[in-house]
Amino acid sequence: MITFERPVRFEEVDAAGIVFFARYLSYAHDAMEHFFGGIEGGYVDLITRRKIGFPAVNVTCDYHAPLRYGDVAIIAIDVAKIGTTSCTFRYRMTRKSDGVASTTVLHTIVTSDIETVVKMPIPADVRALLEAHHLER
Amino acid sequence: MITFERPVRFEEVDAAGIVFFARYLSYAHDAMEHFFGGIEGGYVDLITRRKIGFPAVNVTCDYHAPLRYGDVAIIAIDVAKIGTTSCTFRYRMTRKSDGVASTTVLHTIVTSDIETVVKMPIPADVRALLEAHHLER
Amino acid sequence: MITFERPVRFEEVDAAGIVFFARYLSYAHDAMEHFFGGIEGGYVDLITRRKIGFPAVNVTCDYHAPLRYGDVAIIAIDVAKIGTTSCTFRYRMTRKSDGVASTTVLHTIVTSDIETVVKMPIPADVRALLEAHHLER
Amino acid sequence: MITFERPVRFEEVDAAGIVFFARYLSYAHDAMEHFFGGIEGGYVDLITRRKIGFPAVNVTCDYHAPLRYGDVAIIAIDVAKIGTTSCTFRYRMTRKSDGVASTTVLHTIVTSDIETVVKMPIPADVRALLEAHHLER
Repeated sequence: MITFERPVRFEEVDAAGIVFFARYLSYAHDAMEHFFGGIEGGYVDLITRRKIGFPAVNVTCDYHAPLRYGDVAIIAIDVAKIGTTSCTFRYRMTRKSDGVASTTVLHTIVTSDIETVVKMPIPADVRALLEAHHLER
Repeated sequence: MITFERPVRFEEVDAAGIVFFARYLSYAHDAMEHFFGGIEGGYVDLITRRKIGFPAVNVTCDYHAPLRYGDVAIIAIDVAKIGTTSCTFRYRMTRKSDGVASTTVLHTIVTSDIETVVKMPIPADVRALLEAHHLER
Repeated sequence: MITFERPVRFEEVDAAGIVFFARYLSYAHDAMEHFFGGIEGGYVDLITRRKIGFPAVNVTCDYHAPLRYGDVAIIAIDVAKIGTTSCTFRYRMTRKSDGVASTTVLHTIVTSDIETVVKMPIPADVRALLEAHHLER
Repeated sequence: MITFERPVRFEEVDAAGIVFFARYLSYAHDAMEHFFGGIEGGYVDLITRRKIGFPAVNVTCDYHAPLRYGDVAIIAIDVAKIGTTSCTFRYRMTRKSDGVASTTVLHTIVTSDIETVVKMPIPADVRALLEAHHLER
């Protein structure tokens, strides 16, 4: 498990005054990029030099309690499932101020060639990182 | 079923060149606002005058094929489930140019007082609209 | 002059409850894309097939009155200046409900090869469109 | 002068592959929030408890060189002008990798009551912070 802190930005709320429901996927993505800091060059190098992307194939979000401006999300990231070409991240977001669970995201991605969007096996360094944070084997 | 067209905006892609996965929830929300055009004053009136909001409690997205800049999403909206305080929308997004299925979103919301975020029964006019587009009839 | 209507979207406000100041540039860009509808294939074709882009070199915004969720911006677009490679758009945004001036944007762009980001002369069809909406001739 | 680092996020580019021109105002706002860390409770406390906002009245951006995914903006923040109710921030953004100037933003805000959007004198603690970073001293 890796932990990542993500303050709510001023522009991320909606007209109901709470963080817009789509933004939690942005938070999840930020957390995933942070997670990939565990390999040489990180996510940026995968995307820009190695041309390997991780498009989502499925996402599930459970919204327990809203976040507002001023809140900080503590995001616990782990890996729920590892396949040949795909894997599933789990992000459990809690409100830093009171520890209340806010949102849980399951995010299944498939390793893909960015240019062709054709799937490919998970590279060895990525796999090692995923396995180091695999929930229960 | 109601249908809504949503062109991909210039700023909605990501560094891999496809529509960022969180944006499909923005598309879903735009489609839902369009759907609420079926009641007097629409979604705006619900939010700003009646102070009734519809925060998400659960979202599921299946990503079949990406959208890119230049694509238009055709979004078919219907209602999969209606409860006392909550309901589930289904959005099936297809690429206008070739009819390929892009993304399916299930979106469960709970009718809530905006100020207190306490749930409340679905108002009669909203219920009538939901029932008119209920899948299982 | 071309006119374009742009409703405020649910997610475009900030934690102070008004449209976030950066979004007016998104509105301006949407209006510009609408403006380019005046040439064959529009902005999409310029970007995706002709590989011609229009990065901003300068932007000036004057904010007179805020927009909120529920407001619709009426955007009057015209061309303030036309050079060899660059031009300046002017967008005057007013609130549809009461006609109050909200925001004025001046937006200078330079015609560029998307791949190299090297500037190039304005193409003939684009120039003709710009001239048709040139403020002072 | 205060310095703030802001990595380009995965979703902040546009269909031309560079950071969308409106995002630099988001970067400026993030930098401003960082700047306000210099007072008790920071920007969050001003907005959420003291109900004091700083809507923009004018913005000027000069775009010198684009940022792309993988770049980090180094943002130097100082205060160009201080009035009774308003002030002007200057943000000079350079690309961390090579030190190239990317974008300069001038951002004039007016201290306002968030509920009424009526202007008010700059509070004493904010004024002291602004003066500590005033360009012309």
